[in-house]
Amino acid sequence: MSESLGIIEPNFFHYKEDFHLESGKLLKGFKIIYETYGSLNENKSNAILICHALSGNHHAAGYSKEDQDKAGWWNELIGPDKAFDTNKYFVVSLNNLGGCHGSSGPGFINPETGETYGKDFPLITVKDWVKSQNLLREYLGLDFWYAVAGGSLGGMQALQWTIDYDEHIKKSVVIAAAPKLSAQNIAFNEVARQAIVTDPNFDKGNFHPKRGLGLARMLGHITYLSEEMMKEKFGRDLKKEKYDYGFDVEFEVESYLRYQADTFSEKFNAHTYLLMTKALDYFDPSRDFGNDLNKTLEKTNSDFLVLSFSSDWRFAPERSKEIVNALIASKKSVSYAEIKSSQGHDGFLFPDERYVKSIQTFLENE
Amino acid sequence: MSESLGIIEPNFFHYKEDFHLESGKLLKGFKIIYETYGSLNENKSNAILICHALSGNHHAAGYSKEDQDKAGWWNELIGPDKAFDTNKYFVVSLNNLGGCHGSSGPGFINPETGETYGKDFPLITVKDWVKSQNLLREYLGLDFWYAVAGGSLGGMQALQWTIDYDEHIKKSVVIAAAPKLSAQNIAFNEVARQAIVTDPNFDKGNFHPKRGLGLARMLGHITYLSEEMMKEKFGRDLKKEKYDYGFDVEFEVESYLRYQADTFSEKFNAHTYLLMTKALDYFDPSRDFGNDLNKTLEKTNSDFLVLSFSSDWRFAPERSKEIVNALIASKKSVSYAEIKSSQGHDGFLFPDERYVKSIQTFLENE
Repeated sequence: MSESLGIIEPNFFHYKEDFHLESGKLLKGFKIIYETYGSLNENKSNAILICHALSGNHHAAGYSKEDQDKAGWWNELIGPDKAFDTNKYFVVSLNNLGGCHGSSGPGFINPETGETYGKDFPLITVKDWVKSQNLLREYLGLDFWYAVAGGSLGGMQALQWTIDYDEHIKKSVVIAAAPKLSAQNIAFNEVARQAIVTDPNFDKGNFHPKRGLGLARMLGHITYLSEEMMKEKFGRDLKKEKYDYGFDVEFEVESYLRYQADTFSEKFNAHTYLLMTKALDYFDPSRDFGNDLNKTLEKTNSDFLVLSFSSDWRFAPERSKEIVNALIASKKSVSYAEIKSSQGHDGFLFPDERYVKSIQTFLENE
Repeated sequence: MSESLGIIEPNFFHYKEDFHLESGKLLKGFKIIYETYGSLNENKSNAILICHALSGNHHAAGYSKEDQDKAGWWNELIGPDKAFDTNKYFVVSLNNLGGCHGSSGPGFINPETGETYGKDFPLITVKDWVKSQNLLREYLGLDFWYAVAGGSLGGMQALQWTIDYDEHIKKSVVIAAAPKLSAQNIAFNEVARQAIVTDPNFDKGNFHPKRGLGLARMLGHITYLSEEMMKEKFGRDLKKEKYDYGFDVEFEVESYLRYQADTFSEKFNAHTYLLMTKALDYFDPSRDFGNDLNKTLEKTNSDFLVLSFSSDWRFAPERSKEIVNALIASKKSVSYAEIKSSQGHDGFLFPDERYVKSIQTFLENE
């Protein structure tokens, strides 16, 4: 077992001004929960921002007081001597706006009504998140992030950073991401959303659309795993010795998915889930640049590391290469690696040796 | 427009004996609805059985009295001079047991209770279907089918025929199929089933789990289309000129899927849908032969045509090749073609020139 950061206490950033959203709506201030790992150096030049994906949160590494058995979601990659080496870097990880782990979101009280926001919490875009993360940067007294890094939806934030706040970022680590969602990507998100909003318990007072959220999670989960990995892990293994010819769990893979649905839907906020899928759908930075990704990335001075995973079919290597090709066309500094992995989209969560080395090398080069 | 078969009247086959199912359960007789196209020759040697897939039915070609605007589901492939040429062959198409278009199924009255079967209709397997189709063959006075053909779940029936009733089949046309479902295939089916059975209207008297069935259909639909085709057809096209930042339909692909869900869930029986997905999951003929597909196919004397579609990711060409390789290993007569297509799994529904030609040539060779 690799060295751990121990128990981490979260911090809070209260922003009290009006925060204008891309949708035209307004948040009258917000709260962001975040954690830090490692120490800020004297020059304040070693801060790395970690951005989370759909169901992630601020608790990326170490252990929390409440749950000392389960490490943060990127604990394998953040810590002493790890990919994001906390002996060298000051790592900052937040829960995004709209989240359900401590930052302002659908579970908060709407000051205008005195009730929880629920579906009235405004939709947040990747651009909005990056804007709020830039305010967090100011609050922390940093001139710039040495790097912004994330996988999946987190990688999209790392990319958006270089477009919107290029003067405040040196390096961008864009992992298992895409420059925008495909029709198929949106289609899967739409099924997940329909599962939630058509649940009769959706947005009914204190009821929770547990079934709908569970379905959304099951479906999402299939897209996170590679077909190859599902074959290795479950194949056609049965729960019992022979077929039951009924609707109880028959195959191991069914049991696994039902378990995923149950545990996730107990603890996650359905409105946050909806909001995160919409942020994914809307993400399309080249839309403001005549749908020209080269042009979109033309002005950035960041160094880029783009990483993809061979068996990822949610955001396949081809999608990462679209980013890489645009960066090359715009004569930017970019390193790219396709990591051989059977883990599918989830590959970004595991400390594959070449993966870790790629990040370390990229961060070390000044 | 190619020549049509005109309006087709269905026929019925009433089987009055006990019909023992693979599950150990019993049907005290059954009714099968079927259609025929073309004429049986004097030798009774030109009959072709068409087997349908998950949501298919007996009405494969021509028009029905009730719906004269919409042709049968395989009308492009069945008819004069078409792939299954009704000038030459006597084509028979049935609705499988458990269906909801006229054959005994969950919508029928359970003689033991006097109420509709609903979820009490026993699960039917591919082996059961083939057994019932063999009784239909006897009823029609045929010594053998010149060919049995089908796509997807229909292709699985065409394969099972060669294993169970080899003496009554000459040729098998196995299209866009697999020798068994993968863990990922089962996983998608399980999400579809959970969407239906967790719908509060599921199996509640006369209520219909329209939402759950709609979700199942949306999800299924994504797996029928190729990513490439979704990109061509929808891309990121919006319903309006700009983002709404809300939960109404934003992208064309969302609108399309919601429409598919609505129309399908109005007319299809949820219990049939469940039953069909279970038949898919259970299909695994090599299970009775020590999981050895070569051995499973060793005894057959059929000629085989196996066809796959390049962009099909539900049952990809690799899955068809598993069947082909087993047939080659067992020294069987097999032709194989991977049809270049952007239509994904749905490719088997469209009359691509090479596809049609492959079937015609295979059927013509005696």
